[in-house]
Amino acid sequence: MKIIVTGAAGFIGSQLCSKLLVMGHQVLGIDNLCRGRLDYLLSCRANEGFQFVEVDLADPNQLHLALQAAQSIGQIDQLWHLAANSDIPAGVTSVKVDLRDTFLSTISSLELCEQLGCRKFLFASSSAIYGDLGTDPMMEHAGPLLPISNYGAMKLASEAAISAACEKYLDHAYFFRFPNVVGVPATHGVLLDFVRKLKQTPGILSVLGDGTQCKPYLHVCDLIDAMLFISATANDRRNIFNIGPDDEGVSVQSIAEMVVAEASPGSKIKYGSDNKGWIGDVPKFQYDISKLRRLGWVRRLSSHAALTRALREIIIQEASVL
Amino acid sequence: MKIIVTGAAGFIGSQLCSKLLVMGHQVLGIDNLCRGRLDYLLSCRANEGFQFVEVDLADPNQLHLALQAAQSIGQIDQLWHLAANSDIPAGVTSVKVDLRDTFLSTISSLELCEQLGCRKFLFASSSAIYGDLGTDPMMEHAGPLLPISNYGAMKLASEAAISAACEKYLDHAYFFRFPNVVGVPATHGVLLDFVRKLKQTPGILSVLGDGTQCKPYLHVCDLIDAMLFISATANDRRNIFNIGPDDEGVSVQSIAEMVVAEASPGSKIKYGSDNKGWIGDVPKFQYDISKLRRLGWVRRLSSHAALTRALREIIIQEASVL
Repeated sequence: MKIIVTGAAGFIGSQLCSKLLVMGHQVLGIDNLCRGRLDYLLSCRANEGFQFVEVDLADPNQLHLALQAAQSIGQIDQLWHLAANSDIPAGVTSVKVDLRDTFLSTISSLELCEQLGCRKFLFASSSAIYGDLGTDPMMEHAGPLLPISNYGAMKLASEAAISAACEKYLDHAYFFRFPNVVGVPATHGVLLDFVRKLKQTPGILSVLGDGTQCKPYLHVCDLIDAMLFISATANDRRNIFNIGPDDEGVSVQSIAEMVVAEASPGSKIKYGSDNKGWIGDVPKFQYDISKLRRLGWVRRLSSHAALTRALREIIIQEASVL
Repeated sequence: MKIIVTGAAGFIGSQLCSKLLVMGHQVLGIDNLCRGRLDYLLSCRANEGFQFVEVDLADPNQLHLALQAAQSIGQIDQLWHLAANSDIPAGVTSVKVDLRDTFLSTISSLELCEQLGCRKFLFASSSAIYGDLGTDPMMEHAGPLLPISNYGAMKLASEAAISAACEKYLDHAYFFRFPNVVGVPATHGVLLDFVRKLKQTPGILSVLGDGTQCKPYLHVCDLIDAMLFISATANDRRNIFNIGPDDEGVSVQSIAEMVVAEASPGSKIKYGSDNKGWIGDVPKFQYDISKLRRLGWVRRLSSHAALTRALREIIIQEASVL
């Protein structure tokens, strides 16, 4: 198949491109290279099934470049839309980051599909669309949807636009509601943050929040496996799935202790006073993935195992940065 | 109080401004005068508590004009955001109309609040955010939210952005989920459409769809009454309310017969073959307003009574156009 991946040079996008190429597909990667890096695509670019075009999808004046690149390949079968602001705290100061990089890039990706006659759209949504449900489990049919971060708001806005497009030019849409995802190439997130902090100020690890925040973490290899499984198995017009490790998650305190033990044994951990790391942080949530389980998918790594593996990967990544 | 109303020169906006002025508030009306008309504000403009500024909120370069006008009045207590594309079928061809006029105007209205320190935001949302729930009742906590029109999608996207703003600079947000609203000054909608068609082609009324579409209709006077009631009574951070007439609604066939009897007796009615009037039309829905009823609000006019009254108002409006 011929597949477009937006956000191709990002953390998850680059891993997805690799996997799709291994499966024998032809892939056109699109990225504005703001947060993503061409380095991450080194192995993909060695594959003759891969093409890359640098386009900022949020800029309507650049859309024709993506169109041209796609048209030179032939009929596109799928578009995976992963381009987005990936950093929740970055959207706190202003809605503009998420508006532009998450939402307007979705509008452009939809326009690409319409113009290219591509009828299958796969979207990297997020658990952040649910907002803070307190002790209620996050299930796909939960409502009302009241996100508490611009990140979550613009992911939900994107879902809405994609849903409307299903009425017109899309046959199938997939809404993958991601949990926290860990692995390499790490560009953001709690593990990278802690590892870098300890490198900068050895001996002390300052933690945002009181450490009680507890969330599920999925390794990127499991995430990609789940998305491909859903894409091949679920066949409704609109397919919404929470993706997660199906466990209670791990507290920020445990993660801090894990990082200290692995990266800088003996360092002191200093906690904040609030149970939120930042505005829009959902401190605890019950992520219900029973729908995905019923579809038949089984994860390989628990939250704890995913963090352990990703931590080692990140330590290696950061060592090579030096 | 000092109150901003966006979309002030529109159908509902102009009626809301009138009512707020009667209640003794000072009102700054904002409108881009695309669909709205200054005529509709004649009586408001005679009131010294009213000011008007022509600003296209979807254009970020015009935002400072709205800011200046607001700052000259003093501390703004509430912003009612009614500016939007009001015409669902108009958004079928392209997402751009609703993206711009409904969603980006919301982002600007939020920015106005942030910059003005206005902490109460009231939003004209819509039953269209629910999409087509089939026989399931539309309740405020229904999910997932999968709108089937760009109109509904951009209303939902707006709700998401407002919800995130509640985490930062808003104390209270109100999401008024409107049903079909009828009355004058009518700018669009089934009644006006039928009255104009009969005027253009006397003797024949062509109806989009097979006439079986059945929806609740609320008269604009009841709508405004409900919004003011909710605003004064509900006090959560995020207040979501379906607003409707609490009845089964009226079929398009009944409306067509009603219009023919009143406007052009003896005319033939020609129906389409589909139960949808256009892409994104939700043919039937059970609009649940039990939450609003529990809050204590009682409507004056049923769907049928609202349509009957609005039809007479519209016939007078259209006669005076001649």
